[in-house]
Amino acid sequence: MTNTAPIDLRSDTVTRPDERMTAAMADAEVGDDVLDRDPTMRELELRVAELLGTEDALWVPSGTMGNLIALSLHLRRGDRFLAPRGAHVLTHELGSAAWLAGGMPEPLSWDAGPGRPSARLVRSESADGGGYDSLRSSLLCLENTHNEAGGAVIPPDEHAQLVAAARDNGLRVHVDGARIFNAAVALGVQPAALTVGADTVQTCLSKGLGAPVGSAVAGSGEFVEEARRMRKMLGGGVRQGGVLAAAGLVALEGFDRLRSDHDNAARLATGLTELGWNVTPPRTNIVLAAVPDVGHSLEWLRGLGVLAVPMAGRVRFVTHRDVGPTDIDEVLRRVGNAS
Amino acid sequence: MTNTAPIDLRSDTVTRPDERMTAAMADAEVGDDVLDRDPTMRELELRVAELLGTEDALWVPSGTMGNLIALSLHLRRGDRFLAPRGAHVLTHELGSAAWLAGGMPEPLSWDAGPGRPSARLVRSESADGGGYDSLRSSLLCLENTHNEAGGAVIPPDEHAQLVAAARDNGLRVHVDGARIFNAAVALGVQPAALTVGADTVQTCLSKGLGAPVGSAVAGSGEFVEEARRMRKMLGGGVRQGGVLAAAGLVALEGFDRLRSDHDNAARLATGLTELGWNVTPPRTNIVLAAVPDVGHSLEWLRGLGVLAVPMAGRVRFVTHRDVGPTDIDEVLRRVGNAS
Amino acid sequence: MTNTAPIDLRSDTVTRPDERMTAAMADAEVGDDVLDRDPTMRELELRVAELLGTEDALWVPSGTMGNLIALSLHLRRGDRFLAPRGAHVLTHELGSAAWLAGGMPEPLSWDAGPGRPSARLVRSESADGGGYDSLRSSLLCLENTHNEAGGAVIPPDEHAQLVAAARDNGLRVHVDGARIFNAAVALGVQPAALTVGADTVQTCLSKGLGAPVGSAVAGSGEFVEEARRMRKMLGGGVRQGGVLAAAGLVALEGFDRLRSDHDNAARLATGLTELGWNVTPPRTNIVLAAVPDVGHSLEWLRGLGVLAVPMAGRVRFVTHRDVGPTDIDEVLRRVGNAS
Amino acid sequence: MTNTAPIDLRSDTVTRPDERMTAAMADAEVGDDVLDRDPTMRELELRVAELLGTEDALWVPSGTMGNLIALSLHLRRGDRFLAPRGAHVLTHELGSAAWLAGGMPEPLSWDAGPGRPSARLVRSESADGGGYDSLRSSLLCLENTHNEAGGAVIPPDEHAQLVAAARDNGLRVHVDGARIFNAAVALGVQPAALTVGADTVQTCLSKGLGAPVGSAVAGSGEFVEEARRMRKMLGGGVRQGGVLAAAGLVALEGFDRLRSDHDNAARLATGLTELGWNVTPPRTNIVLAAVPDVGHSLEWLRGLGVLAVPMAGRVRFVTHRDVGPTDIDEVLRRVGNAS
Repeated sequence: MTNTAPIDLRSDTVTRPDERMTAAMADAEVGDDVLDRDPTMRELELRVAELLGTEDALWVPSGTMGNLIALSLHLRRGDRFLAPRGAHVLTHELGSAAWLAGGMPEPLSWDAGPGRPSARLVRSESADGGGYDSLRSSLLCLENTHNEAGGAVIPPDEHAQLVAAARDNGLRVHVDGARIFNAAVALGVQPAALTVGADTVQTCLSKGLGAPVGSAVAGSGEFVEEARRMRKMLGGGVRQGGVLAAAGLVALEGFDRLRSDHDNAARLATGLTELGWNVTPPRTNIVLAAVPDVGHSLEWLRGLGVLAVPMAGRVRFVTHRDVGPTDIDEVLRRVGNAS
Repeated sequence: MTNTAPIDLRSDTVTRPDERMTAAMADAEVGDDVLDRDPTMRELELRVAELLGTEDALWVPSGTMGNLIALSLHLRRGDRFLAPRGAHVLTHELGSAAWLAGGMPEPLSWDAGPGRPSARLVRSESADGGGYDSLRSSLLCLENTHNEAGGAVIPPDEHAQLVAAARDNGLRVHVDGARIFNAAVALGVQPAALTVGADTVQTCLSKGLGAPVGSAVAGSGEFVEEARRMRKMLGGGVRQGGVLAAAGLVALEGFDRLRSDHDNAARLATGLTELGWNVTPPRTNIVLAAVPDVGHSLEWLRGLGVLAVPMAGRVRFVTHRDVGPTDIDEVLRRVGNAS
Repeated sequence: MTNTAPIDLRSDTVTRPDERMTAAMADAEVGDDVLDRDPTMRELELRVAELLGTEDALWVPSGTMGNLIALSLHLRRGDRFLAPRGAHVLTHELGSAAWLAGGMPEPLSWDAGPGRPSARLVRSESADGGGYDSLRSSLLCLENTHNEAGGAVIPPDEHAQLVAAARDNGLRVHVDGARIFNAAVALGVQPAALTVGADTVQTCLSKGLGAPVGSAVAGSGEFVEEARRMRKMLGGGVRQGGVLAAAGLVALEGFDRLRSDHDNAARLATGLTELGWNVTPPRTNIVLAAVPDVGHSLEWLRGLGVLAVPMAGRVRFVTHRDVGPTDIDEVLRRVGNAS
Repeated sequence: MTNTAPIDLRSDTVTRPDERMTAAMADAEVGDDVLDRDPTMRELELRVAELLGTEDALWVPSGTMGNLIALSLHLRRGDRFLAPRGAHVLTHELGSAAWLAGGMPEPLSWDAGPGRPSARLVRSESADGGGYDSLRSSLLCLENTHNEAGGAVIPPDEHAQLVAAARDNGLRVHVDGARIFNAAVALGVQPAALTVGADTVQTCLSKGLGAPVGSAVAGSGEFVEEARRMRKMLGGGVRQGGVLAAAGLVALEGFDRLRSDHDNAARLATGLTELGWNVTPPRTNIVLAAVPDVGHSLEWLRGLGVLAVPMAGRVRFVTHRDVGPTDIDEVLRRVGNAS
């Protein structure tokens, strides 16, 4: 059954480190990051800061920890924060934004497009009741690209309007940019164009970029100093992290490569549509398909050697470095033959 | 300006203890509730449990603490809980459901009527993603009557369906019944008919019932034992609380009196409608009016000697024991003359 | 068995409101403290602030809540705080200083006398390790009088030295003055002499002062504003609290009366010593007796109609308004006859 | 100045991965540990469990996270836990045991030897006050070897007595075994002999064992399942962690090598003593020296090219894989010449 060797479209997190990465890991200059700062770790952090247009950045083991640190430092106990409905911090981080960062979420509808609230909505929702006994709104958390909205992007002008709406009401802004490099490539802009005016940004090296482990949270120098403390509190401080950072540096070099993942996602979406599937045209590397019974469809696909996951009541396919156009065509062939 | 002495419709919490209450407070048999249980406190607690149809109950200084204790004991860190959009635990308790009880809220739309999600929605929202890395839904929190929905009620049959929907998916149920006696009177049922199948209920003695201070949280004997511990942790344990409980017992006796508050609310709503206001017909003692500019309208009303508050983007009037039909007519006269 | 009617020396919290208090409660002018500030509540708060020498004060339902609010506002997540071994915040508040206020306690030995660390010890313990990965010490919490140390007092000069030691290392100071009026009376000073330089103070109206319910937490105007918010979060905000505050005002008037409680404690200690008991001479209203088996002694005393409690491995007797010299003599008679 | 190239004795965390480790990292079979479990990660976890004598184990990024997960799962809000004075969870984890795990610590004196409370003390301290308003003691946290006590060990028989003392009073037991392999080698026993009866154990791969990053927390299968969830909450879940786990597996193979670190520590201690230093004879790889002014001594040592850190008011030297006997002799030569 070699022709049904599974093609894994569950996530862009499944990518394995390539040869350049493993070589870089083996050659990495390392140090004890807790005592001295590991030099490769530090190089990675400064490179991330440069790309995201912030003063500094901090390596963290996961995107969840990056978001959690940012929220913990932005929110006082019980503060209200706004985030688009279905945001990762609301639905995929096991509630740590509430119990640990102490925030009371306000999910915003997608009135400006998939995954995007309008600046008008942010304005109306960020005005406080006012009294001493009213919730205090203190943060807007954006997600670019937005996972549950099928990798939807927030373009720079909308981003700027959203930030202005938040700022005008005294809110800080955090960008969950786990896939911000995908957004930048899709929009043909630099990543820093998508963080303008934000206080903090999180991005993942282990998704489409292909590093085995690691994310970063970026912001002002003062923020990063406190973030380092909070990382230690949460147990995210590591020693010779340079071995991971070296792979991260390789991953960052080639972020333009994400364009081919987007092409493959478009190819998949077009093919599935031609086969009669109900698929939203993707902007980046995530394809969501509406089906009558998600569990059943996933099982059926697995039988064909096509791996996907459930996401917000749909079937989610994600393209990534380890699948190419021929893999996509093979997926379409298997689905077409079995339909 | 005696004819513009302010008429206070801001809340049913503004009621002052009457003569029977102050007499009861003066005569109350008291004890040290931390060491021995205060006998009057205990009498009140057992009376509340009887009325709400639970095994036991615990006096607490406020409805917020009652809700907070229940949520804290029902939720593990980060657990997801469902509550109707605009629920008091989401919007009027300063985020303590999140940072202190540790819950990640999921606001439910009012698809079954004002303040009420449907059982169908509860079913679809309470199914977990399933994996070890998915949010765990563990509680449905109902609010009866629902404040932001204008004192809307959940009738017994709908309550039963909501509870069944939650139970079938392994969720517990808490009823925020701060004004459950209003609901019972409006529906012509016993309060216990509105708590069937729930694990815990909170109710306030200091709203329409008129006691100066105090609420209660009710549930199983085991729950109340842990709740007493949690109350102590939060600083809600008191000593000779019998002085307050005595007033609470008087307040409970006459809960049928709430009917006149409802009549007055209807009188107010009808009158305002005749004057061209956009008012939803009230089910209990809360009247919400939609106006173009809430702040402006409240100011204007205050100038006429009519006190109200903003609530969910509207003007809220609440009737209570210290206003009668002639006060309502006076309100309508003042508004009518000035319009 | 009228001659063995129990004499209750378990705590000064068992006192019942007297006639003046119940009269004051019945006549109290009240308001909705959440909406408007209750006028009697406000009068009490300002009176407490005056007595304690602070800018403002806030009524709270219990001393535990007062301490908890102060610690929550002083401590950032994980901050280290110093408190004498056996302090109430460490041992009698169910751990809320840790899980809720987020503090990591450092119990200090009593190297300056019962219940009192020395300023030297505070200095050496409040110096931080320094690195970004070191605990941050941020608060000294004193207790005056110190319960587990048998009502021991901190005199003004020692208090001043302790405060200076803390301040010099950047620590804030909170005084748990649940029985600070006892300390003031014993030392022959004004209560404000025992709070000099402290940021916040908590005191109880329901212990020796005899009010049925209530405490207060005092500090700067800015602190009290945030404290009011935190009180609401914890569920300690009440409505017509004036009924309780009226009793509190009466209680504060006569605080000099505590002198007789101290005389009675001395009388009890002397008598017990004469009967061969191992008793530390009391400074205020608490008598601790070392016995071989605390549980057994408490049971034996109960059989004689003398109620006491266990405290830090000893038997604790507390004198209060509802016991007089003849009651003490009766206690001694019963113990003497049965020995 | 080649002869003063710094010799780094600050910690055994400074070791760099050796060639076998980097080769293993390059060749590691990896997977997405969040979706599927990474196979090398899993192999490491099962190997750790085998060595520690537990049912299962979980990789975590740091020892702090391992301890934090264990404490979080063992403690309910506000529960009291016993730990030897100076334990890592009390002094070197930024207070997360309190604010995040929610525990109220009780530091125990070292009445049985350096770093070790006696079973008798555990018994007397783990008995609860009893009432509903008393602290609940629920955990004993041991540390073997104990860092602040200079790498002191708890031998198997004492461990067993401590565990029995805890168990008899209903407490769970967690072993912070960051350096448990050092203890095992020093005592000539298997690591599992030092975890008998404990519920959970944490151990570090990145200290003396020399892996670049990583620790593990071990316990029952049920515990590890919940721990995996908590790890995700804290942001400690990673993707292709196999690259790190591969180095961890190499590190575990040779744990007997720690013997030479202990020999070097003894060599250092003997030499320093001969030079007139006040040094406690080490049991494992940590040498503590008492000096009049720690900051000054560290600065002076640094000038000689000898790196050490402050620890509990002393100078701490740690031997590790990257320093040999000749390095120790060079340290002694530099110190001797300069004295």
